[in-house]
Parts: sequence; structure tokens; C-alpha cells
Amino acid sequence: MMVVTSGAVAFGKQRLRHELLLSRSMRQSLRPNEHPQGNLMPQLEPRACAAVGQGGLLSLYEAMFSQYGLTCAQVLVTTPDFKDPELRNNLRSTMDALIKMNCIPIINTNDAVAPPPGEDHDLKGLRRKPNSVISLKDNDSLAALLAVEMRTDVLVLLSDVDGIYTSPPGRSDSQLISKFHPSDLENIAFGGKSRVGMGGMESKVKSSIWALERGTSVVVANGVGSEYHALSKIMSGCKIGTFFSLAEKSGPSVEEQAMDARKAGRDLQALGPQERAEILYRLADLLEERTTEILDANALDLETATSSQNLTPPMLSRLSLTPNKINSLAAGIRQIAESSHENIGRILRRTKIAEDLELVQETVPIGVLMVIFESRPDALPQVAALGLSTGNGLLLKGGKEAYHSNRCLLKIVQESVARYAPRTAVQLVSTREAVSDLLKLEGIIDLVIPRGSNELVQQIQEKSKGIPVLGHAEGICHVFIDKGADPAMANRVVIDSKCDYPAACNAMETLLIHKDLVGTQAFQDILNNLRDHKVVVHPGSRLAKALPFGPMPATSLRKEYSALECTMEVVDDVDDAINHINKYGSSHTDTIVTEDDEAAQTFLKTVDSACVFHNCSTRFADGYRFGLGAEVGISTGRIHARGPVGVEGLLTTKWVLKGHGQTVADFAEGGNLHYLHESLPLTVEEVEDVIRDTQGEIRTDEDIEDSSYEKDKIGKDG
Amino acid sequence: MMVVTSGAVAFGKQRLRHELLLSRSMRQSLRPNEHPQGNLMPQLEPRACAAVGQGGLLSLYEAMFSQYGLTCAQVLVTTPDFKDPELRNNLRSTMDALIKMNCIPIINTNDAVAPPPGEDHDLKGLRRKPNSVISLKDNDSLAALLAVEMRTDVLVLLSDVDGIYTSPPGRSDSQLISKFHPSDLENIAFGGKSRVGMGGMESKVKSSIWALERGTSVVVANGVGSEYHALSKIMSGCKIGTFFSLAEKSGPSVEEQAMDARKAGRDLQALGPQERAEILYRLADLLEERTTEILDANALDLETATSSQNLTPPMLSRLSLTPNKINSLAAGIRQIAESSHENIGRILRRTKIAEDLELVQETVPIGVLMVIFESRPDALPQVAALGLSTGNGLLLKGGKEAYHSNRCLLKIVQESVARYAPRTAVQLVSTREAVSDLLKLEGIIDLVIPRGSNELVQQIQEKSKGIPVLGHAEGICHVFIDKGADPAMANRVVIDSKCDYPAACNAMETLLIHKDLVGTQAFQDILNNLRDHKVVVHPGSRLAKALPFGPMPATSLRKEYSALECTMEVVDDVDDAINHINKYGSSHTDTIVTEDDEAAQTFLKTVDSACVFHNCSTRFADGYRFGLGAEVGISTGRIHARGPVGVEGLLTTKWVLKGHGQTVADFAEGGNLHYLHESLPLTVEEVEDVIRDTQGEIRTDEDIEDSSYEKDKIGKDG
Repeated sequence: MMVVTSGAVAFGKQRLRHELLLSRSMRQSLRPNEHPQGNLMPQLEPRACAAVGQGGLLSLYEAMFSQYGLTCAQVLVTTPDFKDPELRNNLRSTMDALIKMNCIPIINTNDAVAPPPGEDHDLKGLRRKPNSVISLKDNDSLAALLAVEMRTDVLVLLSDVDGIYTSPPGRSDSQLISKFHPSDLENIAFGGKSRVGMGGMESKVKSSIWALERGTSVVVANGVGSEYHALSKIMSGCKIGTFFSLAEKSGPSVEEQAMDARKAGRDLQALGPQERAEILYRLADLLEERTTEILDANALDLETATSSQNLTPPMLSRLSLTPNKINSLAAGIRQIAESSHENIGRILRRTKIAEDLELVQETVPIGVLMVIFESRPDALPQVAALGLSTGNGLLLKGGKEAYHSNRCLLKIVQESVARYAPRTAVQLVSTREAVSDLLKLEGIIDLVIPRGSNELVQQIQEKSKGIPVLGHAEGICHVFIDKGADPAMANRVVIDSKCDYPAACNAMETLLIHKDLVGTQAFQDILNNLRDHKVVVHPGSRLAKALPFGPMPATSLRKEYSALECTMEVVDDVDDAINHINKYGSSHTDTIVTEDDEAAQTFLKTVDSACVFHNCSTRFADGYRFGLGAEVGISTGRIHARGPVGVEGLLTTKWVLKGHGQTVADFAEGGNLHYLHESLPLTVEEVEDVIRDTQGEIRTDEDIEDSSYEKDKIGKDG
Repeated sequence: MMVVTSGAVAFGKQRLRHELLLSRSMRQSLRPNEHPQGNLMPQLEPRACAAVGQGGLLSLYEAMFSQYGLTCAQVLVTTPDFKDPELRNNLRSTMDALIKMNCIPIINTNDAVAPPPGEDHDLKGLRRKPNSVISLKDNDSLAALLAVEMRTDVLVLLSDVDGIYTSPPGRSDSQLISKFHPSDLENIAFGGKSRVGMGGMESKVKSSIWALERGTSVVVANGVGSEYHALSKIMSGCKIGTFFSLAEKSGPSVEEQAMDARKAGRDLQALGPQERAEILYRLADLLEERTTEILDANALDLETATSSQNLTPPMLSRLSLTPNKINSLAAGIRQIAESSHENIGRILRRTKIAEDLELVQETVPIGVLMVIFESRPDALPQVAALGLSTGNGLLLKGGKEAYHSNRCLLKIVQESVARYAPRTAVQLVSTREAVSDLLKLEGIIDLVIPRGSNELVQQIQEKSKGIPVLGHAEGICHVFIDKGADPAMANRVVIDSKCDYPAACNAMETLLIHKDLVGTQAFQDILNNLRDHKVVVHPGSRLAKALPFGPMPATSLRKEYSALECTMEVVDDVDDAINHINKYGSSHTDTIVTEDDEAAQTFLKTVDSACVFHNCSTRFADGYRFGLGAEVGISTGRIHARGPVGVEGLLTTKWVLKGHGQTVADFAEGGNLHYLHESLPLTVEEVEDVIRDTQGEIRTDEDIEDSSYEKDKIGKDG
């Protein structure tokens, strides 16, 4: 470990300013305005500053390292130390000796006696002669020289930016380069100098390449950023800053994957609806044809899972594929294909702005989606089918337990895509780290959909930097039994809501009871029934007082048990129940059981949740049960999509305006045109137009099928 | 300035471990397994650690402060120093002397000789006897004792969390308290100890209150968080951490404002559509009735603006209100009222899940919106009307130049609300700092809409912590002149797109020309026309080669000039133009001028922007021109709302399921029910139902008006 440090000049300046202040006359201090600024604060000579600061800088390092029982050594060098063979030898043996004794050399240029910096010979040649000499002129080149001289394993250059960017950071199109090959030099544009220290980024890159080509790995990272412990993270192999390597890239970077997915998504979008459907039909066929191959891959995963004994039986059963599962998967994908024709280009609004100026709002894909799902391999083709049917590029991350199954299924998906669009329309993201990297790519990835445990969703939401996340963080669902409830119905709804699948996000977590019911037979029946189903009831503070026995009270009224447990509390009436739910709930799904229509109406209208139910189980909150076809997920967010989300959640809209040369000035005061803003019906002709437009010349043998489909579609819209 | 520091024990431990390692026998080192762990690393005695660490700690402080020419002094204290009058006197005079000489006392308890901590008498009494004695047992109490003894102005307690929370930070419902009054003690729940240092949060709060009640202000803040320079920020009055004050609150905190807005929004939503419309009609009437009052307030703002000469003439004219402006404002608000009846509760989907189990998806308000607009006071009632008509709670932040006008207009808005809902449904946020604070309240504020310059939008997007922002960061709009363009039309569209309002986000920033046009008369005409309109043209690299004259080339192909300037570049064909736009554009608005329908179709389909136009000016991308009625803003985001956004952008949906006791188990394999998933028409009866349901008993004299409105509505939906 060697430290090349700057700071001596800056520290020295601080001190000399203080000295200057002490040495000026009383008159100067009392009447500063009579004296020009120059007199008060003469230009500080940098070399003098360096001389003054050097001592303080070293004592600071000493004080800090001594806390860890480490000894420092000061080494000041000048250019000849690297040029003259004898001096070079001296330097090397000194350093060797220090390092052997576990001392940490603190190295700086001997600025107090160093010559003024010469002309910048080598910098200009940066792009042309990477093998040229490097001269000692800042700490970057000093560090590079030392690293090569001492054959260090890694050279870390700390800066105040996160690493090397494609163009000066802060520009809207600049991107952090996480792995830098010397050939990348052509793709970057340098800005000015760094705010801190002498060397700008250009000097860092030059020094890095110079050292790299002489056998030292280099990392340029942020030493003052929000990621603490940059050094220890780099040493433990974390992906921080820019890593310089001579190795050619082994595959596309996550950024490139995302860009490829966007490009491929555009190609998908440009296809006709029949072509997109074809891809899905092909996928369904391939899944059935290659069942053996899929099951073989799945067997490998099952073997690993069984031998490592990491998975619970339900997890194993989710991981396992069967011929039956694959058949119903194929059937499901054919259904998605059938209903996919209207996904893109569906017209939502049509307005005649003025004569010959018509506006249409139509559905388009969102762009690039990243979907993260846990170890159910059948999710991969399902999600792929949803993404393909809506023309979106897809980055998928499956559980590592399903590694072989997912790779096999991806190959099949890509094969079916390849007929009409680039395979890169659907890609796998291999590591968790890659997911974290992708979550930073705002503007490249448009929407993230985590499907799995609440922890997963929450983690993704926290990590995402500006990319919207569609999901539900918590599912604290309530059932409220009103005093007017039918007792048998209340019992059925409560048991189904809690026990049908206790770990689901739409399972009941809190049971609210009208105060008039406490102590009645109906109340007792519910308690008994819950006990018979092995549900542990945690009473709220109000109920606890009313209960004859003393179970563990609830620690919080806002708790998701995800198990056979629930909170139970008493409320005064429907308004009290609503307040409770709006205060402690998570706006997921809440239900009222009552025969009193007025109370039900109030509840349905005032409870502020994505799903509000009357006289039925909370478990109905689900895309399939809602009849949305394939489910993308459940969202508790308030914008874009809310509650169970179908393919609509994967679409956005676009405004298309067709004119004949109109300008806004034509409509200004005194202009010759006026806004009509006539709402036009979505006529049969219009729909036919769209179908013709979007299918263009690609009609093939399937024409007969097509037209029957079109008739269906027109029937629906008209 | 006095520093109370911990760390001596930790530093000492480090060092003693090192010593232990050196002093164990060779056998112990070589065969560690033969010796129990206890032998190798005996329990380190904390007092010995303190004695060892104290020196190192002080030398670290000395090294650091000496860089700034400051001298440190070590002061170790024990309990008697605060109890015995003579010792107390000694301590105070020592400290006074040090501070007078500008020395910085580094204070710690004399742990090497301190007695073991006694029983925790006073902590238990925290809630009951705030005036009780405090004993010296951690650095928090030491700092409090010293602060009171030395009559400091402010006591800053640094921790590893951001301040005092309502419950242990990390819990989903815990909130940072920015201003703490001793009476707030009842509202907080303490967790365990802090990860760093001795004192938990409870001890910090106790010490803070104790010091506060004896005349010292206290701030508890994060010393290691992502906000650097906590101390200097606190000294300059920034709102960081928790500020303890005896002053009663002067008004609601921003958090309370937001909570109030949500509550009031719920009340708004519970109203019938006619009641919400009534509020707006009343607002329109009040604006007209109180024109004089509004103009007087506006005159005050104009006076300030004129005398300070900060505003340009166009800004002044936007700030200024006239009787005419107020009249058309009132007319606009009446229009919003008229079209508001369908906003909430509009049925988007109706599905028969099974017999007697019907699902409805209907529109509901989003919740609480924060709208930030620049100095156009007429925006306040407009935005308020949009928010009220969609049942949303509103927090508004106007430009400070319109201070008096905004306050006057808010009063009028709140008066019109007060008839049916709490005034807090619409509130003003007074400072920029409050906006920053509000942007952290994820879960309390649902959507932020900045209306103004791109800088404003970008700033808000960066500051928002998890709250979606609806807006457009950049507007890099393109006009592509295809080879098949009508020359006169191309000329008109280009000039209107650039010159009609160059600073608008929908103004053209880049002009793309088909390569076949370069050098033609049409090309020359466009150049001349742009020159006549004083537009500075910056050629891209390809065009620069083709141009005989040499204007300044464009520095970037992705540049928003917002002035009479534009980039101009040559492209090969429509596909090349599309690639250029997708690469350099901002997905706002792009237009093609061509008579070639196929090229137009490709362009409209493949350009990936919110608005794509054919043969008309980019300036049409606007809510009013699109016929959306009132405009909320323009969004370049890809989810929720895209392009010009009308009231739809202020609404989300809710799923309402009405059953008769159905459970999910009824539909399971072997169950007695089956999913039907029949799509039901949105019948006349249904619509009538909804209107009856949502209006309930509030029908009044306006019944006749209502019914005519209902017919309209049924006509549209049926």
C-alpha cells in the first residue's frame, strides 16, 4: 500500500494566510478599505505554500494511521528520481524497505524545489502514441510512474466524479464507463479540469492507459462521493468507478443490452399485429415441440436444488416443470396472441382540430421493460409473451435456482422472435449486480416490474434511480364486518381472505369488527372459526380490553403477517372503519361485509384503495380473477396503473396529428382559421385504416384468418 | 466553539488489539486452534482502552485543526466537575480562558478514572419530570451540561440518523420531526440505541430538552449522512435534522399541510359532482365580484417588481392582472365546472366475473398534488379549479413576485371551497425550502407538477425522492423536410415551428433536410426565410461541409436553444431522419413535411415521441390546441400521461367489486362456481345508477340543470 497525496499547497495556503493576517499592521486591519486588496493578501507563492503545508499534511496522515498502529513514511520525489538509473534504484529500494516493514509511504512531488512545469509534450499525443513517455506533472502521472516502477497490483485514482464518462459528466448524454479498454478512447470527449486537484480527467485517462499497458490494473473512482469506503469496496471486487482493462469485452455490457433491447423493441413495434401474434404462436409451438429439451434443463436445476436442500417443498414445486405445465403454458401464450391484435395502435381519441387537421391518440409500447421474477421458470415465456405482444423490449432477470431452465426457455423465445425481429428483443440479465446497474439507466429503461416478495419490490423501489417501478410494496388488506353483516357470509369471507393463501399480498391482514358485534354469537363464531383454521389473532388495544382471554396484542396496527396470523380490532361504525383503513392500510384491497347498502356505498366510495369490495373475499384482487387476461402485476402506486394490471400497464400513448401545412399563426387573432375541436367517433373506416396502415404489405397466407380477426375487432370498437 | 467527542475507547481498542497481537507467544500465533479464543484476545478493559485512545484521538484533532491555524486543548471531566461549586467554577474559568484565546476545547469524560455508570435514575422519569436533574453518563448529557454551564447559543448533537423520528427510523410510518417542541414527546416511540456512540435517541432527546429548557437551542443532526457539511449548514440556518425550540408552532408544518390536503381531498371526493361544480361556479363569481380587491393586491406586486427592476417587460405583463384577464379567467373556470361532472366516478370497464359478482373500474382522484408555477398569478385559480374539479388536494407554490396576488387569490379560492369542503383542500406553500421538504414526502404527496422553465422541471425531478414528477425536462423538437415536401408548406411549417414562440418547449430546435434538397431553390428559400426572421442557423457536421458560407457549427446535435437559433443537418432519407430523431431528440414533438404518404406513415409510426406530426407546425403540441380543455402540462415521461395532459392526468382508477359472499375457494377446482368474465356494456342504467349513487340526497334547485346534463352524459357514453 502506497499513498500518493495532494493537499500540501492547499494546506500551506491556509496556514500562510493566517500568518499574513498576524503580520499585517494594526492600521491595515482597522481600515482595510484604504488599502488595495493586493497589499493585504499578496499572491501566495505555491512553492512556499507547499513547503509550509507538507509538514501538516504528513502529521495528519500520521495521526490517522497511528490509530490503527500503522507507521507512515514521507517520500518526496522529483522528475530525476524516475529518469536517472541510480536515483531510480535508490527510490525503489527505499520503497521496498518501507513496504517490507509494513510502513505506508506517503508520496508527493517535492514541490518546494521542483522546476516549473514544462510544456505539455506528451498530452497532445494522447490519441496517437499511447506508448510514448509520460512526464511527471501531476499526482496522476506520479502515481502511474510509481505503480509501474513498483509493479503494483492495482492503481486507484480517486477523483470527485464517479469515474470516466463518455462526455463531461452533467451533460445529458454522458454515461459512466464501467470498463475501459484503451480502444474506447475514441468514444469519449473530455471536458475541463476536475474541481479538486491538479489533473483533469484527460490526465487520469492518459496515466491510466500508460500504467495499464505496463501491467498494472487501474481503477478511477470517486473518493468523496456518496458511496463510502471506495477503497475497501474496490479491493473486495465491487464494481465501482471505471476499471481499466486490456481484456476484450466478453459480452455486451448491461448498458448495451438495454440499448439493444430498445432498438429491437422499435422493430417489434414496426411489425404488424399479425406478425407479433405469429411470434407468439411460434413460441407456443416451439414450447410443445421442445418439451424434452426444456424438461432436461429443468431436471438439472431440480437436481441442484434437491442436493443443496435450500428450497422448501412449495418452492421446489414452483421450480419444477411438467409436460402438463408446458402445455397449459403454450395454451396461455396462444390466448395472449389471440387477444394481442388491438394492443398497439388502438385509437383512444380522435379529434377534428380544424378542417383537414385531425388528431388521433393511439396506444404504443412503453419501450424497454425490466421484469424481475423469482424462481418460477414458467414466468419467463409468459412475461416474454406479454412484452412481445405489446411491442416492448424486455430485460428479464429470473431466480438463479432456475438457471438452466431459464436459459433453455430464453433460447426458445429468441428463436421465435428471430423470424421477424432481432433476438435481442428479449434478453436475460445474469446477475443481481447487473440489475442494480440497470436500475441506474434512467432514459434507457422505462419501467421496472418486480414480481415476487414484498422485500424484492421494496428493494427495487429503493434502488431505482428515476425509473418508475410498477409493483406493490405492502399488502395490508382489511375485512370490515359491519353490524348489518350476514354472519355466515362474514365467516366465509374472513376465512377465505385469510386462509386461501396467507402469503399472498391480497390476503387479509387486519379484521375490523363493528363494536355492536363484540360478544355476540356471530363474533364468537368468527373467533372459533379462525382458531379452527389455526389463525393466530392479535387484538388491537381496544379489542384487547374487551376480550376475556389474553392473546398477544398486536405490536402495530399496520402489519403484514403473510402467514396464518392477523390483527383484529373494534371500530365504532363504518366511518371509523374507513378512517382506520385509510390510516393504517396500504391502499391495496379492502372489503366490507354488510347487508346495509348505504354503509356499503359509503365504504366503496370513501376507502382510498386500489380495490374496494363489498361482500366478497379480498383474494379476488388479481388480474386473472378480474378477467384482465394475463397479469403483469398488482400496483399500489397511484399513477399509470392501479390494482391488478393487465397488458394496459405495458402500453402508453402517442399523439398523431395529420395536417395540410397548418401553422399555429393561422389560428392567432386575425388569422384565417379557427379551432373546431370536434370529437370524432372511432369509426369502422378509421379502424380499417389503422389495420391497413400498420400491416402494410406484409399480408401472406394468413389473410383469411386476418380478415375474420378484423371483423371481430371492428365489431368490438364500432 | 467547543467539541465534545467520543472515540477514545474505540481508538484505544484498535491499538490494544495490536499490542496484544505483538505480545502473544510464537506458539499461540502458530497454533491458534490449540488455544481457546479467550486466551488470544482477553476482554479489553474499556477504561484501559480509553486511556490508550485518548492521546491518539487528541493528536488527530490537533493535526486537523492545525491545518487551519487553530489550537486545541484537551479537557477531561468527571461528574464532580459539574456538582462541586468550586470545581464547577474552575471548569468554567478554564473554558472561558480557552475560548477567549480562540482555542478549541476538545472535551471528553475522563473515562480512565470515571466510576462505573450508576443506575439510570433520571431516564425513566423522562416523560414525567422534564425539569429533573440530568446525570453525566454519555456524551449527550455531557454536552448538554456543558452547553448550559457555558451558556452556549446552540448545542449540536451529531448522530448517524438524520434527526428525531416519530418512531424508529426504518419503520414504514416513521417521519423525521424537523421542529421539536417538548410537548411532542408524547408522539414519539423510541427504538434501541444508535449504532454509533453510547447514547440512544432517547438520551439525545432527554439531553436536548434539558438544555433547551435552560436556554440553549439544540439541533440533532446526521454527522455522517449524505448531506455534507452539516455543521456549517446548521450555522447558516439551513433546515437540517431536528431543531428543538420552545416556541409554539407559528403554523402547520409542510407535513401537516400535506396531510390536511389529503384529508380535505377525501372530503372533496365524497362530494357529488354537482357540489364540486358549485365550488367552481362560486369561485368564478367571487373572482368577478372581488376584482377590485384582486387588482389592488396585484398592484402591490407590480409596484415591487417595477421598483426592483428585476423583471423583463414580458414577465411584467404576465405578472399583471386586468379586469379583462379576470373575466376570461372566470369564464374559463365556468367551462371547467361544466365539463367536470364526468371526472370522478366515470366507468371505464364493467365485467361480470360470475353470477352476482360484478366488477367496475372507475376514475378517482390521484390524491394530493403539488403544483409549482412561475409568476403568473392567473395560474393559481386555474390550477385550483383543475384540482378541485378532479377531487384532488392541492399544494401550490407560486413565484414570489406574485406574493400579494397569490395570497388574495388563494383567499378567494378557499372561500369558495369552504361551502362544501375544508379550506385546506387548496393551500399555498410559502418557500422554496418547503418545496424541497415536500418533495421528500413520498406516500403523502402523490404527484408533482412543475409548470415553468426546463430548469425548474429538471431541478424538481432531481430533488423528488420517489414522488413521480409530471413534466418535460427538455423539448428538442425536430422538423424534417423530406424530398417530397411542398416547398411553400415546408417554409411555413419551419418558420411557425421556430419563430411563433421560440422559448416554448414545443418550438423547433433542429431542422433536418433530405440530402436531395441541399443546394436546391427550396433549400435556399428556407435558409433565406430563416435569415429574414433573424434565426441563427448552426449547421451539423454534414451540412457544414455542403455550405458555401461558414456559420458557427452546432456544438451538439442535442441542444435546446429556446431562442431564435436552431441546428440544421442533412439526412439521407426518412429512415435516417427517424434514427437521428430517436438518437438526439427528447421524445417531445417531431414533424415531417412531405407529400409522400408512405414516408409520412413510416415517420408517424416509427418516431418514438409523445407527439408525431405530418405537415403541420410543432407548435400544435399543446393541451388547448389539442382540444383537451384546460392543460395540466406536457409530459415527456412514458408512463401515466404522455404529451399534452388534460384532466385525465389528474385522475387514476379504482376497482369496485360487488358480490354476495363469494370466496375464491368457490372457484377452485371442484368448487361450485366458474369465472364468466363477461364484458358488460356501460349501459344507460349503470350511468344513471352512478349519478344517483354519487349525488345521493343532495339534489337541490339545480335538478333541472342536472337532468339535462345527465342526458348529455348518457348520450356520450351509450
